[in-house]
Amino acid sequence: MRLSRSFLPTLKETPADAQIVSHRLMLRAGLVRQTASGIYAWLPAGLRVLRNISQIVREEQDSVGAQEVLMPTLQPAELWKRSGRYDAYGPEMLRIRDRHERDLLYGPTNEEMITDLFGQAVKSYRELPQTLYHIQWKFRDEVRPRFGVMRGREFLMKDAYSFDVDHAGAVASYQRMMLAYLRTFQRLGVKAIPMVADTGPIGGELSHEFIILAPTGESGVFYDGALDEQDWLHEPVDTDDHASLDTFFRRTTSFYAATDEKHDQAAWSDIAPDRQREGRGIEVGHIFHFGTKYTEAMGVSINGADGQSFFPEMGSYGIGVSRLVGAIIEASHDDAGIIWPEGVAPFDAVILNLKSGDLACDALCERLYREAPGRLLYDDRSDRAGAKFADADLMGHPWQFVVGPRGTAGGRVELKRRATGERSEMSVDDALAMIAAFGTKAAS
Amino acid sequence: MRLSRSFLPTLKETPADAQIVSHRLMLRAGLVRQTASGIYAWLPAGLRVLRNISQIVREEQDSVGAQEVLMPTLQPAELWKRSGRYDAYGPEMLRIRDRHERDLLYGPTNEEMITDLFGQAVKSYRELPQTLYHIQWKFRDEVRPRFGVMRGREFLMKDAYSFDVDHAGAVASYQRMMLAYLRTFQRLGVKAIPMVADTGPIGGELSHEFIILAPTGESGVFYDGALDEQDWLHEPVDTDDHASLDTFFRRTTSFYAATDEKHDQAAWSDIAPDRQREGRGIEVGHIFHFGTKYTEAMGVSINGADGQSFFPEMGSYGIGVSRLVGAIIEASHDDAGIIWPEGVAPFDAVILNLKSGDLACDALCERLYREAPGRLLYDDRSDRAGAKFADADLMGHPWQFVVGPRGTAGGRVELKRRATGERSEMSVDDALAMIAAFGTKAAS
Repeated sequence: MRLSRSFLPTLKETPADAQIVSHRLMLRAGLVRQTASGIYAWLPAGLRVLRNISQIVREEQDSVGAQEVLMPTLQPAELWKRSGRYDAYGPEMLRIRDRHERDLLYGPTNEEMITDLFGQAVKSYRELPQTLYHIQWKFRDEVRPRFGVMRGREFLMKDAYSFDVDHAGAVASYQRMMLAYLRTFQRLGVKAIPMVADTGPIGGELSHEFIILAPTGESGVFYDGALDEQDWLHEPVDTDDHASLDTFFRRTTSFYAATDEKHDQAAWSDIAPDRQREGRGIEVGHIFHFGTKYTEAMGVSINGADGQSFFPEMGSYGIGVSRLVGAIIEASHDDAGIIWPEGVAPFDAVILNLKSGDLACDALCERLYREAPGRLLYDDRSDRAGAKFADADLMGHPWQFVVGPRGTAGGRVELKRRATGERSEMSVDDALAMIAAFGTKAAS
Repeated sequence: MRLSRSFLPTLKETPADAQIVSHRLMLRAGLVRQTASGIYAWLPAGLRVLRNISQIVREEQDSVGAQEVLMPTLQPAELWKRSGRYDAYGPEMLRIRDRHERDLLYGPTNEEMITDLFGQAVKSYRELPQTLYHIQWKFRDEVRPRFGVMRGREFLMKDAYSFDVDHAGAVASYQRMMLAYLRTFQRLGVKAIPMVADTGPIGGELSHEFIILAPTGESGVFYDGALDEQDWLHEPVDTDDHASLDTFFRRTTSFYAATDEKHDQAAWSDIAPDRQREGRGIEVGHIFHFGTKYTEAMGVSINGADGQSFFPEMGSYGIGVSRLVGAIIEASHDDAGIIWPEGVAPFDAVILNLKSGDLACDALCERLYREAPGRLLYDDRSDRAGAKFADADLMGHPWQFVVGPRGTAGGRVELKRRATGERSEMSVDDALAMIAAFGTKAAS
């Protein structure tokens, strides 16, 4: 994308009403703009991050056999009356009446709707297990929306729902999803620690939340540093095999990890001091097993192997996709701006033309840019170099290719790595080869 | 995807309340389920089609320089009061009040919001032209929703908005978008004819609608058969050059094309009889140039080259993405079911195992399936062959690989092409090679 003709409006001033660093940086870097309290429009760079995250989430859901669907944003009130949650949900549910005076609501979650869709379509135990998910906008009418997309009202969430014949199957589905979550967060470039959680209003008996470590996090966390050394992407788990899943799950949950609410000082002191990790964290995912709570309430039963009908066991599994954009920035920034992990960055690199209008600089920049225009931002503005450096650091591209008159004359390009600040010089051919490699990644 | 474990519920009976063929086939093929009047959930096969269409739309928007954003579904009423459309819009606008008694609405279109976002960010003529688009769910509270996704209430639309310095620039933006639309529809595998249209409530002076030919279409159409022979994908147009755009536009609009409302018998009779085409059609896109109507109403002006501020000229450009799913089926089906064009099909091919449980058939099917599992549906159910053939025709996969005991013993696979019904036999190696080629297409 050429910056001179792009809708990437950065701000020099810090917006006064933004209380946390991710909110300030998202506004300053031109990722989002607020359109109403707790409601945001995603500008091109922000949308690219949102889609990169969504795609990683999607691939890891698919890889454990979950199937993607797309449920609508608006739901009939009648569905929620069947489960008993319509009256219980409270003022966070946005209730809507249409022109025919029928009651609708903007879905805050989808247990009722998916259970109903599943029950209409699936009749036999032979079709189980199934896990269905969607990535869709939801609405919770927060009394005081704040922290930008971290606690907005209209937000993007991945929610998955598993249906199993029995308790053992449901536990395997839960364990499979825990693996998918750990892999997802690893690919997103953040550390996310699974913590035993209360099940709360969703109900059920088994629940974990996933907490990203960030100094500005909402809750204190304590965990065993051995968790930091796990490589979930290469963890050898056969997700079709209950015993293999169970071995993975037992090992993963054997490491101590707790938020301050559930912290157990005695268990903590059993961990070797050099492995004790304390910090703060932000919840970005939550998984639940809740058995037959919704299938029973909605009257959804299917035929069993013995000819008797039964209520399938369910679990639900959420990831806050739009919240993650803020949470990743909370976990990865410095005073100059955002430091995007490579998997989620809106652009792999920026090309900084230090002398736009200079024939040689322009020609070299164009040559670099044409190698992978879909993955690069080209700062072709006529601004001074200092403004370009500042915007590049603010926007947080993983790599900066700096093209100035002196280097161009010598056939050299300067490369800066945003995460470390490291600078090096390279030949034009090496720069072209590095950029060509960006282009071979899957389109986001 | 393995059919035995997939959420692809086909129906044998024709749903009684579905009046048109695309609605019936979308329900029967398990693409969607209605969740409330005019509101649908997209099941895995339907969602794949919706995403394939969205991706083609996106690529062609990007290729003429439009930038993707994502505006929220809910909008503050205040924006629409500024343009004067809040009171004018009528009962199709879904009006919502939040817990703080603030008026919101579910966006039926986005002229107001994009004009406001643009005005906040862009200050100088140097940053023009810009075209912004998004693909987002919208809501129109139709008094009588019908025809399935063809006239639903919650629907997915691509809407683009161009901003230009002057009238000549705005016309070029309009012409660029016409080219993008013609290319989009060609890639979708449908014939879409551009017709001069009235501008209606959006206002403006220049407008075309794009009509897909389908025998069940809502309006009669008359056009010059020369339009059928155009290849827009290879039309040599330099989209940065106004003269080149204008040549393309004049030539394209010189061919006679009109709906029955605007049909001109005299002009029609000037066309050579062998080029006269009559049919019926469904509107799937609409483009407008309306000048400064919204920038003036919203008070959005920017600084000109002469130091004076001016109101940018705008156009807006819509494609009904969810409507297209129905419209493509209206244009492409037979008595047995859907005939998906290759670019939008949920799966490139189905593998029909005529004897599930037979070791040799199972092994051969697995071998074929593993070559490109993301692009194939594998019918591994234990149903009888007739049911599998019927479902394959109903679901409309472009190719069917038929694996039976006799062919397997001889190392042969039968191939059926859905569009023509043509059957041929091929070696296993040729089948593997053909399937491998599906896998090399970009992931959808």
